[in-house]
Amino acid sequence: MIIVLKNDVKELELTNFTEYIKNKYNVGVHISHGHNSTVVGLVGDTSSVDEDSIGAQSIVQSVKRVQEPYKKANRKFHPDNTVITLKNGLKIGDGSITVIAGPCSVESEEQVVEVAQAVKNSGAKILRGGAFKPRTSPYAFQGMGADGLELLEKANNETGLPVISEIMAASQLPLFNDVDIIQVGARNMQNFELLKFLGKVNKPILLKRGLANTIEELLMSAEYIMASGNENVILCERGIRTFETSMRNTLDISAVPMLKRLSHLPVFIDPSHASGITWMVEPLSMAAVAAGADGLIIEVHNNPSAALCDGAQSLTPSQFESVMINIKKIASALDKNV
Amino acid sequence: MIIVLKNDVKELELTNFTEYIKNKYNVGVHISHGHNSTVVGLVGDTSSVDEDSIGAQSIVQSVKRVQEPYKKANRKFHPDNTVITLKNGLKIGDGSITVIAGPCSVESEEQVVEVAQAVKNSGAKILRGGAFKPRTSPYAFQGMGADGLELLEKANNETGLPVISEIMAASQLPLFNDVDIIQVGARNMQNFELLKFLGKVNKPILLKRGLANTIEELLMSAEYIMASGNENVILCERGIRTFETSMRNTLDISAVPMLKRLSHLPVFIDPSHASGITWMVEPLSMAAVAAGADGLIIEVHNNPSAALCDGAQSLTPSQFESVMINIKKIASALDKNV
Amino acid sequence: MIIVLKNDVKELELTNFTEYIKNKYNVGVHISHGHNSTVVGLVGDTSSVDEDSIGAQSIVQSVKRVQEPYKKANRKFHPDNTVITLKNGLKIGDGSITVIAGPCSVESEEQVVEVAQAVKNSGAKILRGGAFKPRTSPYAFQGMGADGLELLEKANNETGLPVISEIMAASQLPLFNDVDIIQVGARNMQNFELLKFLGKVNKPILLKRGLANTIEELLMSAEYIMASGNENVILCERGIRTFETSMRNTLDISAVPMLKRLSHLPVFIDPSHASGITWMVEPLSMAAVAAGADGLIIEVHNNPSAALCDGAQSLTPSQFESVMINIKKIASALDKNV
Amino acid sequence: MIIVLKNDVKELELTNFTEYIKNKYNVGVHISHGHNSTVVGLVGDTSSVDEDSIGAQSIVQSVKRVQEPYKKANRKFHPDNTVITLKNGLKIGDGSITVIAGPCSVESEEQVVEVAQAVKNSGAKILRGGAFKPRTSPYAFQGMGADGLELLEKANNETGLPVISEIMAASQLPLFNDVDIIQVGARNMQNFELLKFLGKVNKPILLKRGLANTIEELLMSAEYIMASGNENVILCERGIRTFETSMRNTLDISAVPMLKRLSHLPVFIDPSHASGITWMVEPLSMAAVAAGADGLIIEVHNNPSAALCDGAQSLTPSQFESVMINIKKIASALDKNV
Repeated sequence: MIIVLKNDVKELELTNFTEYIKNKYNVGVHISHGHNSTVVGLVGDTSSVDEDSIGAQSIVQSVKRVQEPYKKANRKFHPDNTVITLKNGLKIGDGSITVIAGPCSVESEEQVVEVAQAVKNSGAKILRGGAFKPRTSPYAFQGMGADGLELLEKANNETGLPVISEIMAASQLPLFNDVDIIQVGARNMQNFELLKFLGKVNKPILLKRGLANTIEELLMSAEYIMASGNENVILCERGIRTFETSMRNTLDISAVPMLKRLSHLPVFIDPSHASGITWMVEPLSMAAVAAGADGLIIEVHNNPSAALCDGAQSLTPSQFESVMINIKKIASALDKNV
Repeated sequence: MIIVLKNDVKELELTNFTEYIKNKYNVGVHISHGHNSTVVGLVGDTSSVDEDSIGAQSIVQSVKRVQEPYKKANRKFHPDNTVITLKNGLKIGDGSITVIAGPCSVESEEQVVEVAQAVKNSGAKILRGGAFKPRTSPYAFQGMGADGLELLEKANNETGLPVISEIMAASQLPLFNDVDIIQVGARNMQNFELLKFLGKVNKPILLKRGLANTIEELLMSAEYIMASGNENVILCERGIRTFETSMRNTLDISAVPMLKRLSHLPVFIDPSHASGITWMVEPLSMAAVAAGADGLIIEVHNNPSAALCDGAQSLTPSQFESVMINIKKIASALDKNV
Repeated sequence: MIIVLKNDVKELELTNFTEYIKNKYNVGVHISHGHNSTVVGLVGDTSSVDEDSIGAQSIVQSVKRVQEPYKKANRKFHPDNTVITLKNGLKIGDGSITVIAGPCSVESEEQVVEVAQAVKNSGAKILRGGAFKPRTSPYAFQGMGADGLELLEKANNETGLPVISEIMAASQLPLFNDVDIIQVGARNMQNFELLKFLGKVNKPILLKRGLANTIEELLMSAEYIMASGNENVILCERGIRTFETSMRNTLDISAVPMLKRLSHLPVFIDPSHASGITWMVEPLSMAAVAAGADGLIIEVHNNPSAALCDGAQSLTPSQFESVMINIKKIASALDKNV
Repeated sequence: MIIVLKNDVKELELTNFTEYIKNKYNVGVHISHGHNSTVVGLVGDTSSVDEDSIGAQSIVQSVKRVQEPYKKANRKFHPDNTVITLKNGLKIGDGSITVIAGPCSVESEEQVVEVAQAVKNSGAKILRGGAFKPRTSPYAFQGMGADGLELLEKANNETGLPVISEIMAASQLPLFNDVDIIQVGARNMQNFELLKFLGKVNKPILLKRGLANTIEELLMSAEYIMASGNENVILCERGIRTFETSMRNTLDISAVPMLKRLSHLPVFIDPSHASGITWMVEPLSMAAVAAGADGLIIEVHNNPSAALCDGAQSLTPSQFESVMINIKKIASALDKNV
């Protein structure tokens, strides 16, 4: 961390300041006097150093962090890709493309089993399905809850597909026993108490980026889970909020190469929520694979018009089949398996 | 809700569609055939009607909500201002300006009592103090927790000031027995499970707007609390994320008159988090009062340089005194008490 | 256009209103009386109808445009892709991928000729080079101006590559005689006087999207050029401003399929300005081709460290060669030529 | 400027780098070797140093500007407020509040004279009126042009009010002979050729902030005008683009104190464009005065429903009278004249 001091700092103030920092944060200090400014460099692990607190000191002009504030999620300290292995042996992040597919909400046994079989036939490796749904309105359908998770388990029994579902509160965890991957939604990306709690759970976590959060904030939220003990985190870009109105959100495709460079964790793309539009899922999925994503999470419904939520972005099984054919073309050109 | 259909809709499709809507949402339907488009209007309470689901129908071109989706927070159905009365008789939202002040984090008994006395002397009516702190980094100071809440209670005993503190998880509620107002932070504005939970609590809730959330989303989150039974909600604008880099966030001053018009709930401004800069708190507080805010929540610390969080935005007691003098000038010009 | 009136509109007000609209905008009117609102639909060409003016009427509750406000750029009225043919016979938008490459700024004959030959060898079909540079600071290098355009012409003589360069004011046009495509930069996307002026020029225009402009606004700016007589417009997405700080801008990859659907004009991507980072140009270029872009515009410099502007995002010729190899893989998988 | 180098820089590379910088930018260099990084500080006037170019050097890790990149607009070098005096002796920026008012577009002699007399009676000191209008659509009313400027001059003759009008291209300047202040609109804030041109004009310039531009970018655009010779620049905040949909733009009230601190130039607020809603003009005007603005620019029309542009945000003369009464209350409380 580089701290630029104001022009008129006195020697005693400087000494007090550096002693304070050394004691409080257990870091070394290197002072350099320039012609018209003094620069203090902090040496060692600065991840616990609070920039705001430093910046509040009366003698400080500005503060610049040089080291990334995340450690466990940082590729610098873990050069090899994290590969996550599910109970059934499926590997995520091993260089192949993993496709997760299924309905936005679980609605009935018939629906979820039918969709599960269809997406499995087209090449999906994991089944998604919402049981607890984060809805902007308290009057909208909130998901089937525990019953929904049971239906997912039935679909797993029928098809063998591992399942992923979203958790919205720590108290729901006992219901997630048979879920293979727990999802944290965009609106809970900075629900730090939930993140800490999931850091003590022995299941992989798929962590979605918040609608207006930076890549560094996403990595810091992953760091919350990892620092609490659970290092099996999958990062998921699902569209950010911008001024564009012709689609629901804007897919930040650059997040894929940037996250892969900064972190060793697997990176997924959710083209369904990113656009909110059926016909955009295919080109965005193709772009995601071309940009280097480790996987996709796609909404598929056997009857999108009747879906209880997010019908506008759900593919039919035959539309999903078309997406799979096209992403296999891209993957194949890059010597990757889907 | 106005639904514009595609040009080539057949009579049978239209009939099926309108029957489906009438049954599913218990609303009336009014069809109007124009020259080159058919428009379906929904009549009745459309708050549970899902725009996405309607928009996903193959015959629909676009959907426009005419009614606001919130009811309990809506001024149309509750023309009079909500006035919240605390245990000590203090009224919030009654036309006077209520100032909340205190440290970002509770750090010691000496600190919180000293600050409480100082802000009380300058005219603050409620003491703020964080015990559970939402921090971007897991390595940063996370607050004193239960001990912090006890120190707040001591400061209340010493000064008589009611206290407000932030909750981050439902499981923390038992510790908030002596807290007068429970705060929900910006990052939890759409933690819907927490909102539902707080809807069953018998204390006023101060709900902060998320960093990239719209005014309607803020009102929908208030609606979550109110629909669960707790109608004592205070809305708080605390700065939104924009492209500006010279300050931490951008205060949306327009939110004050807009929220006052759309809702009957009290509206507060947090100029400390909005700017993140000590010297901006005064002009922003003055602007907030001029724009019609019901109250302010301001960070004050007896030693900002040594604050364990957000020191850069904390006022000293004497700076706070200056803010109070200036907002009283504005309030007085508008015939309001502080 | 659908106009929802307020609840309590009187018959005379309605008649006055509809007569006013019919006369002013030369459109038909269709009135439908619902249970609790009256809806007025406008029939005919509503592109000149001003939503703000309609919305200002005292009897109007809200206005919703159903028709797109652009006509000449609209695919609905021109289903076939626009194909632009340059003087040397090169076709843009014909299903193949056209790569434009070259230095940010023209700096010397040696530089521009050397880069031109290198990018031609790797497969670029058009040479880019800035002579007039839009710089945030008046103290930064503003480009070589007329001399720069002459050097581009020399590079064209040496290599046969058509050239593209940016115009910043109408008065510069006489200098652009030998330029094959004129570029309008992001900061001038809504310089409407310049757009009208370029509508009378007989050269293709590459129009860059503004940093915070919507897709509809981009199409409206294209419409300005087309409505003035020049229908050879290339649309270019070059990154939008978001909250992300790890790169300069955020590439809106979704703009590619959306623009291709809404308009018949060719769509290009500028991965260099979108990211501002050398190593991101390759994955973003691959994503752009996978998403369906008609072309790319990429910065290449023979000595990026010494570049007078935007060095941080310029590829070396050998990095550019690698990009070309990889986009050819993607293009080939999709049966497209580069 | 502080340049942090990568860890493994060799002595020769460092020497070459610092020699290059000293020669190219005519600045001094101060090197400090830390434990795990080397920091190079630049000494002297760094306003022409290109951060991107520095950042592109292979040995550089990151660059941080310490000095502001603007000089003539910088309060550090010109501590006293700039006061602009118009031909009729009116002073802007002298501590009083200057209100500019008038129609969005000039439409007829009757309209502009009637509005001018009304706003003068309520206390406006300058008449605004658009003759050249920047419209998103080429099919919308583009203003009366030269005829509009003549009508403004007639209104000036009738009332004595100085006039302000917007210029959209350098070629229009000869028509602005009788205009007292030339306005540059938000969409032209980074039309650098126009800014340079206006730097040679002997009239005050009111420069509006772009919809997604930072405060520093606004000051850099002012610097373009000032560096070309015209130091009479008025800065105007007119609302920025955010995600909020209940109003047209979001007024950045914090820009007032921030601009006043960073620069010595007068700062105005445009509450009409900021909100796009009639009833919001009053509370936003009051907030602007409370926050320290030097003036306001407000749209007033004698018949808003019939206005040819932006009717939804235009006040009637009696609404404007109410705004004036209320801002006088605030100004008076702060010992300022309106």
